Amino acid sequence: MKKWFLFAPGPTPVPPEASLAMAMPILHHRTSDFEAIFEEVREGLKYVFQTSKDVIVLASSGTGAMEAAVVNTLSPGDKAVVVRGGKFGERWAEICESYGIVTIPIDVEWGCAVDVDDVKKVLDKHPDAKALLWQASETSTGVKHPTKELAELCKERGILSIVDGITAIGVFDVRTEEWGIDVVVSGSQKAFMLPPGLAFITLSDRAWEATKKSKSPKYYFDLAKELKNQQKNQTAYTPAVSLIIGLRETLRMIKNEGLENVFKRHAILAEASREAMKAIGLELFSKVPSEAVTAVKVPEGIDGGKIPKILRENYGVIIAGGQSQLKGKIFRISHMGYVNKFDMLSVIGAIEGVLKELGYKFELGAAVKKAQEILWR
Amino acid sequence: MKKWFLFAPGPTPVPPEASLAMAMPILHHRTSDFEAIFEEVREGLKYVFQTSKDVIVLASSGTGAMEAAVVNTLSPGDKAVVVRGGKFGERWAEICESYGIVTIPIDVEWGCAVDVDDVKKVLDKHPDAKALLWQASETSTGVKHPTKELAELCKERGILSIVDGITAIGVFDVRTEEWGIDVVVSGSQKAFMLPPGLAFITLSDRAWEATKKSKSPKYYFDLAKELKNQQKNQTAYTPAVSLIIGLRETLRMIKNEGLENVFKRHAILAEASREAMKAIGLELFSKVPSEAVTAVKVPEGIDGGKIPKILRENYGVIIAGGQSQLKGKIFRISHMGYVNKFDMLSVIGAIEGVLKELGYKFELGAAVKKAQEILWR
Repeated sequence: MKKWFLFAPGPTPVPPEASLAMAMPILHHRTSDFEAIFEEVREGLKYVFQTSKDVIVLASSGTGAMEAAVVNTLSPGDKAVVVRGGKFGERWAEICESYGIVTIPIDVEWGCAVDVDDVKKVLDKHPDAKALLWQASETSTGVKHPTKELAELCKERGILSIVDGITAIGVFDVRTEEWGIDVVVSGSQKAFMLPPGLAFITLSDRAWEATKKSKSPKYYFDLAKELKNQQKNQTAYTPAVSLIIGLRETLRMIKNEGLENVFKRHAILAEASREAMKAIGLELFSKVPSEAVTAVKVPEGIDGGKIPKILRENYGVIIAGGQSQLKGKIFRISHMGYVNKFDMLSVIGAIEGVLKELGYKFELGAAVKKAQEILWR
Repeated sequence: MKKWFLFAPGPTPVPPEASLAMAMPILHHRTSDFEAIFEEVREGLKYVFQTSKDVIVLASSGTGAMEAAVVNTLSPGDKAVVVRGGKFGERWAEICESYGIVTIPIDVEWGCAVDVDDVKKVLDKHPDAKALLWQASETSTGVKHPTKELAELCKERGILSIVDGITAIGVFDVRTEEWGIDVVVSGSQKAFMLPPGLAFITLSDRAWEATKKSKSPKYYFDLAKELKNQQKNQTAYTPAVSLIIGLRETLRMIKNEGLENVFKRHAILAEASREAMKAIGLELFSKVPSEAVTAVKVPEGIDGGKIPKILRENYGVIIAGGQSQLKGKIFRISHMGYVNKFDMLSVIGAIEGVLKELGYKFELGAAVKKAQEILWR
């Protein structure tokens, strides 16, 4: 019997409450029934994004919202500084370049967080930069960039802070409004515990002002048009109705648990994951680890590609390997969303099992024991 | 007890087979399990689109695929002729204009199909036009434009034919490859019997050639990048996994019924719907009615907005009213997707009921009887 366990950094497991709600007969979106649901969803999103501003819902993956962030606030020829410390940092740069935005990359060694002083220096050299773009959590490396500090720096310099919060919002504390972040994007298949297909984006007043000056072409991702519709609990184009209905359920779950408790849960699961790996002699890849995903170096002498492969094929356990240049060099355990203590014992036990199978020398049980000590501290 | 009946032109009813498949635990997309599903889906889409070329799957509403059609094949400054005979014809023009494409509209009276000779004249006047864009089925007016003839005309003139098949593909015969149509788009929530959130687009060899010359900016909707990934049964960005799993089920249903039988079913349901309305003295709005949706004029003296409202609130039956300039003037009954004979008796009976309630004079039962005569002919 193979039973599936999902520990990849998106899609994350979907709670049965949401699956069943989404399996109900489909609603038509131009009805008061849908509007009541969407109104509740919009309020719930503000709570999770920690903002009083509208959070726009798009029918797309997270990348769509990243594109929306760029094409609504910047114009061809504008200069944007991009923190490039992983696959998703690269994506920010690619999007900007696709739309003719002059991109100044800050290349950060994969596995490291950006240094705020380095950013300052680049901004000093480019006083005409209009925006700084980064990842609150860089999913490919499991790194957390210093979002609060960077947002403050942007405010000081009067430039837009544009944050990819796809594996950060609802995972750890990102105070969109209090920290004065101008644009934050996220997606449904991470802490929001839903299948992929919805993306979210919120803008500060300053960012909405910028949308008025933006000359980048756009249609499907035109946020001003969406805002006008969504403030009436409708959308400009047909919304992904079933996912929005599922989102109402998962937002209720987050609200019931309380955002602070959700953050605490993620923090302790992440700590247990890190300490468990260290307890069997493994090294963490991320210098400043995100609570969304733990990236672990594949030990010397082990074929890195085999770890997720055997876990999936023989154990039914899905974790992620490394992407791009990290292929075969790291593996990544996600602990965001619908994950609790007992799930962590499963995934850590599975990793011990596969490492034993691959001939790695360690004391079987040491990782799970370490996790238990932290989880039941 | 209120029981819901959905007869709106999207979303259309979702079969329980698809709902249950989508309620299964979510799959990770970077796995061979997902790839096997996606491979089957890609084959099924080719069958429904009647083409041997790849049909690209996007995580967006249909409008996203319309944007993809424009930004991948045309460039700023290019000239495009747009058939504008309803809300979705207007949308083609808006998208083109958003991307700096010079738009030559052919304004067609709402409710009428475009005249091929009129198109010829416009193309004669604009020999530098690069493309003709139209709706195979204009959902807002229930009109079918002459797609075969227009596609042939485009071929003759050596310009791209770009067709919105959102409420046409899988509803009635559109022979993408045989008729030489260059670009066809569709969406999940129509004949594909799924919730909204997936869009589809297929390109001819000539259209793929055009993508190489297109200078329009794009990232999320970059079809060349998607093609490269989808030919390996993956996607450039996280796909809407659950909807793709549902799509496998509905494509199997279409294949089992046989595309020709699906078209016949839609044709007879549409005919029954039209004749039933005429049997109680109502007038059809569309001069060339589409098999997707029947648009009916609101009779003199009746408040048109009340028809869908009472149907929804008192009867639990969802049909659509008119959009934009047609608000209150027409109502629209959809019969595409997961709809059969018995469903037609329900919706026609419900319409008789609401008309009686609103004081319209007619012989109760005449519409249903007429529908029965056609459905059991």
